Amino acid sequence: MANFKGHALPGSFFLLFGLWWSVKYPLTYLSRTVKKNGQRKKCYQCPDVIEGAVKASFALIGMLAEQFVPDGPHLHLFSGSDHKWEKLMNWQHTTMYLFYGLSGVVDILTFIRGVKVPLGLDRLMLSVAVFVEGFLFYYHVHGRPELDKHIHSLLLIAVFAGAFSILMEVFQRDNLVLELFRASLTILQGSWFWQIGFVLFPPWGGPAWDETDESNIMFITMCFFWHYAVAVLIIAVNYTLAYCCIQRCKSRNNGEIQLGLGVRNQKCDKSSCAALLNGSDEE
Amino acid sequence: MANFKGHALPGSFFLLFGLWWSVKYPLTYLSRTVKKNGQRKKCYQCPDVIEGAVKASFALIGMLAEQFVPDGPHLHLFSGSDHKWEKLMNWQHTTMYLFYGLSGVVDILTFIRGVKVPLGLDRLMLSVAVFVEGFLFYYHVHGRPELDKHIHSLLLIAVFAGAFSILMEVFQRDNLVLELFRASLTILQGSWFWQIGFVLFPPWGGPAWDETDESNIMFITMCFFWHYAVAVLIIAVNYTLAYCCIQRCKSRNNGEIQLGLGVRNQKCDKSSCAALLNGSDEE
Amino acid sequence: MANFKGHALPGSFFLLFGLWWSVKYPLTYLSRTVKKNGQRKKCYQCPDVIEGAVKASFALIGMLAEQFVPDGPHLHLFSGSDHKWEKLMNWQHTTMYLFYGLSGVVDILTFIRGVKVPLGLDRLMLSVAVFVEGFLFYYHVHGRPELDKHIHSLLLIAVFAGAFSILMEVFQRDNLVLELFRASLTILQGSWFWQIGFVLFPPWGGPAWDETDESNIMFITMCFFWHYAVAVLIIAVNYTLAYCCIQRCKSRNNGEIQLGLGVRNQKCDKSSCAALLNGSDEE
Amino acid sequence: MANFKGHALPGSFFLLFGLWWSVKYPLTYLSRTVKKNGQRKKCYQCPDVIEGAVKASFALIGMLAEQFVPDGPHLHLFSGSDHKWEKLMNWQHTTMYLFYGLSGVVDILTFIRGVKVPLGLDRLMLSVAVFVEGFLFYYHVHGRPELDKHIHSLLLIAVFAGAFSILMEVFQRDNLVLELFRASLTILQGSWFWQIGFVLFPPWGGPAWDETDESNIMFITMCFFWHYAVAVLIIAVNYTLAYCCIQRCKSRNNGEIQLGLGVRNQKCDKSSCAALLNGSDEE
Repeated sequence: MANFKGHALPGSFFLLFGLWWSVKYPLTYLSRTVKKNGQRKKCYQCPDVIEGAVKASFALIGMLAEQFVPDGPHLHLFSGSDHKWEKLMNWQHTTMYLFYGLSGVVDILTFIRGVKVPLGLDRLMLSVAVFVEGFLFYYHVHGRPELDKHIHSLLLIAVFAGAFSILMEVFQRDNLVLELFRASLTILQGSWFWQIGFVLFPPWGGPAWDETDESNIMFITMCFFWHYAVAVLIIAVNYTLAYCCIQRCKSRNNGEIQLGLGVRNQKCDKSSCAALLNGSDEE
Repeated sequence: MANFKGHALPGSFFLLFGLWWSVKYPLTYLSRTVKKNGQRKKCYQCPDVIEGAVKASFALIGMLAEQFVPDGPHLHLFSGSDHKWEKLMNWQHTTMYLFYGLSGVVDILTFIRGVKVPLGLDRLMLSVAVFVEGFLFYYHVHGRPELDKHIHSLLLIAVFAGAFSILMEVFQRDNLVLELFRASLTILQGSWFWQIGFVLFPPWGGPAWDETDESNIMFITMCFFWHYAVAVLIIAVNYTLAYCCIQRCKSRNNGEIQLGLGVRNQKCDKSSCAALLNGSDEE
Repeated sequence: MANFKGHALPGSFFLLFGLWWSVKYPLTYLSRTVKKNGQRKKCYQCPDVIEGAVKASFALIGMLAEQFVPDGPHLHLFSGSDHKWEKLMNWQHTTMYLFYGLSGVVDILTFIRGVKVPLGLDRLMLSVAVFVEGFLFYYHVHGRPELDKHIHSLLLIAVFAGAFSILMEVFQRDNLVLELFRASLTILQGSWFWQIGFVLFPPWGGPAWDETDESNIMFITMCFFWHYAVAVLIIAVNYTLAYCCIQRCKSRNNGEIQLGLGVRNQKCDKSSCAALLNGSDEE
Repeated sequence: MANFKGHALPGSFFLLFGLWWSVKYPLTYLSRTVKKNGQRKKCYQCPDVIEGAVKASFALIGMLAEQFVPDGPHLHLFSGSDHKWEKLMNWQHTTMYLFYGLSGVVDILTFIRGVKVPLGLDRLMLSVAVFVEGFLFYYHVHGRPELDKHIHSLLLIAVFAGAFSILMEVFQRDNLVLELFRASLTILQGSWFWQIGFVLFPPWGGPAWDETDESNIMFITMCFFWHYAVAVLIIAVNYTLAYCCIQRCKSRNNGEIQLGLGVRNQKCDKSSCAALLNGSDEE
C-alpha cells in the first residue's frame, strides 16, 4: 500500500517488537542468577512461543491488509484479459510479510516441547526474513524520485545491519550485546517506516516535500541517525528500568550482590562451551 | 548452451544435490546418538565418497555436454583462420563445471582411507567452485537485455549467499543450521535455473516475455523469493520425515528419549574443541 | 565548518586518541604479569573512566564549535521565513560528534563501579559512532569536485576499516593486535583530517590545488598510504618505548623473565574462556 | 614500470612465495607429530626469519627497480619547474612494495628471540600490505582501455580474497586450510601478473590484443580461473610430495601411524586454547 497506512502498519509492528525485545533481553540477562532452579527454563519458554505466535499473526495481518484493501489485488496475480500483472507492489509487500510469517512459525516450533528443531534455526530464519525484506526494497525503488530512493536506501542500512547482526546470533546465541543491537535496529526500522509515511504521504495533507531538493536529502540523512540516537536512548532507559526492577526483586528475596559476576561464571561451564561449538545453547 | 536444455541440466544437478543434502544432514544429525559404536564412522564415510564421485560425474557430464552439443566448440578454443575465439559461452560454462569437478575430486580424496587431506579443504574447494560460478556469471551478462541481466543477478544472490555459507563451514564443520541453509540455497539455485530456462527460452514455444517491461522485472524479483519459500518448505518436510524415520528406528531398538540433549553433550568433548581450533572435525 | 579549523579540530581529537591508545594498550598488555595482585583492576579502571569523560568532552566541544562559530546555525534548524534548512553541513557534523559523545557516556557507565553494563557494549557503541561518521561522510560529498570527493572517499577506507575492526573487538575483547590496529587507523584518520584541511583550505593562502587534475588525485591516493606507513611507524616506536619502560620497571622489582609467556598462560583460565563466550572480559 | 618487466618482476616474487608456502605449510603440518621434542621450535623459527628477510629484500629490490630504471623518477616526486608530479605510476608501485617491506620487517621481529611482538601482528601487517596493493590498483586503472581495466579488476579478486584470507589467519593461526588457500591465491597472483605482462606488453612484439573486443574480455575472464585451477593442481602436487617425503622419513624412524589424529589431539591443550583467545600461538 503506497500510502501512509501502508507504512504505519509495518512501522508499528517493528516498534512493538523492538520495544518488547529491549525489555525482554535485559530482564532475562539480569535475572539469570536470581532463579537458578529448574523451573526457570519452562517458565522462560512460554514467552518465546507467544512471541513467535504474535510474529506470525502480525505477518498474517500484514498479508491480509496488503491483499484486501480496497485498491489491493484480492489474490489476483495476473490479469488474463489485459495480459499484465496485477498490483505488483502489494504482492511484493505480501512476500515480505510471508517470510516474517515463516520466521514466526519456526520460532513456535523451536520452543514447543517435543519438537527437535536445531537451535539457531530460528535466528537464521529471522535473518533470512530481514535479508529478503532488504533485497525486495533494494529492487523496489528503481525509477522513483531522488528523495523517495534516498529515504528507502537509508532504511536499507537498518535492514542489512539488522540482518547481519541476527546472522551473528546463529553462532553467538544469548549474547546480550547482539540482542540489544537487534532491538535498537528494530526500533529504528519501525520509527523510520513512520517517518517515511510522514514525508512521502503527509497524513494531514499540507504541502508535500520537494522530492528533488538536495537540502531535503541532506536533512533526511541526518534525521535517520537522530532516530537511531533516540532508539539507543530508549534501550538505555529500558535497560535501567529492568535493572531497578530486578534489584528490588532481589532485595526482597535474599539479597545477593554479585549478580553480574554470577552470570559470567555460570556461563563458563561445559554446556555453554558446547553452545559455542554448536552455535546453540543448552536446553 | 544458451537454450532451455543448457539451463535444465545444471538446474537438475543442483536440485538433486539440494534434495539429497536436505535428507542426509537431518538423518546424520538425528541419528548421532542412536549408533554410538565404532562402526558408525566407517559406515558414514561411504556416502561421502559416493557423493564426491557423483559430483565429479555430473561435472564431467556437464563439461562434455557443453563441448560436444552440435553447436558446441568441440574443444576448439581459437580459430586460427578468422583470428577469433570459438564459442566462449560454452567454454565459460565448461569452466564452471570444471571447478565443481575439482571439488568432487577433493571430496573423494578427503573421505578415502589412507589419504590425509586436511579436513575443511573439501568445503573450501566447494566454496571456491561456487564463487567461481558467481564471478563468471557476474561478468557473463554484460550487455544483455534488462530482464536477462536481472534474472541472472537474482541467481547471484543465491550463488554468493551459498558460497559464503559454505566458507563458514570450513570453520564450523558439522553445524546443522549451516548445512540446511546450504541445502536450501542449492535447491533454490536449481529451481531458479529451471525458471530462467522457462522465462528466456520457453520450451513449448509460445510468446516470449517482453524483456524490457518493468513489471516483468518486478514479478521475477518476487518470484525468486517464492522459490526460496518453497525451498524452505521442502527442507522442513524432509527434516520432519527424517525425524519420524529416526523415531521409529529408535522405538524398535531401545527407546532412548533424550536424543537432542545427547547430541549436544557428545559434542563438548576434547576432540570437537580441537575441531573448532583446527577448523576440522574428529575423524 | 567547511574550513581549515573545521578539519583541524576533529583531526587533533583523533590524533590524541590514536596516540594515547598506542601507548595505553602496549603498557596494559606488557604489564599484566608484573602486577598480579588485586589492586591492578581498580587502578586500571580509573583511566578508562577518564578516557570516556575526555571522549565525551571532545564531542561536546566539537558540537558547540559547530553550532556557535560565527557562521554556524546557533541551534536553528529550520528557517520558517524562507522555508529552508539552516546550515545543514554544521548540523551533520554535530550529529557525528553526538554519536562519539554517546560512546563516551557508555564508556563511563561501563567502568563506573556499581553499574552493570554488559561488557562489549562500549565497543559496539564506539563502532556505531564510527559507522555513523562513515555513512554521513558517504552521503556528504555528493556533487563536490573530483578531488574533494576522492580525498573524502579515502578517509572512508580508514573509517570503515576502523568501524569493522572495533566491531570485531566486541567478540575478541583485549586482543592487542586489534587494539593496535584501531590505534593505527585512528592516527591515520586524525592525520588525514589535517591533510584534507591543508589540501582543500590552504591555511597560509597560496595557490589552491587544481581539483580536477588527474595527477593530483593519483598523488593523494598514494599520500594516504604514506600517512598509514607513518602511523605504523609511530605505533612501532611507542610499543618499543612501552617495552623498555616495562623492562626497566621489572628489573627494579624482581627480574621476572618470562613476561610474554606469562601473559599468555594467564589468559587461558576459565574467566577468559567465559569472556570469549560472552564477548566480554572478566570484571 | 608500465612494461613487461614491470609485471614479470612482482609476478616472479609472488610465484616464488606461493610455491614456497605450498611446500612449507604441508611439511610443517604433516611433520608435527614426528618431531615432538623441544628442538622443533628453535629449528622452525629459523626459516620464518629468513622468509621475512627475503620478503623485505624482494620489496627493496622492487622499490629500487621502480625508482632507478632509466625512465624512473630517481626519487624526485615533484618537479618545481613545471609544477607537476613526476612519474606517479612508479611512485605508486614503490608504495606497494613499501608495505610488503614493512610486512617483512614485522616478520623478522616476530620470530627473532628476545623481541616480544604480539603474535598475529605479522599476519595483520601482511594483510594490510595486500589490502594497500588492492586499493592502489583499484584507483590505478581509472580511465584505461576496457581490457586493461578488466584484466586488472580480475587481479583484484585474487588480491582482496588473499587479503581477507590472511586477515582470518590473525584469529585462526596455523590453520592449514587457510594457509594453503593463501598459497594458492599467491601463485594465482604471480601467474596473473605474468599474464597481464604478456597481454598488454607482448614481449616478443607481435600484434597487440584488441583492447575493446568483447570476446577478448570474455576469454580473459575464463583464463583467470584456469590459472587458479592450475594453482590448485600445483598445491595438490606439492602436498602429495610433502606427504610422501614425510612418510619416508617416518618409516625410517619408528613408523608411527596415527599421524593425523596425533596432530589434532596435540592441538587441544591449554596453550592452543590461549592461542585462540589471543589470536596468537604458543611461542
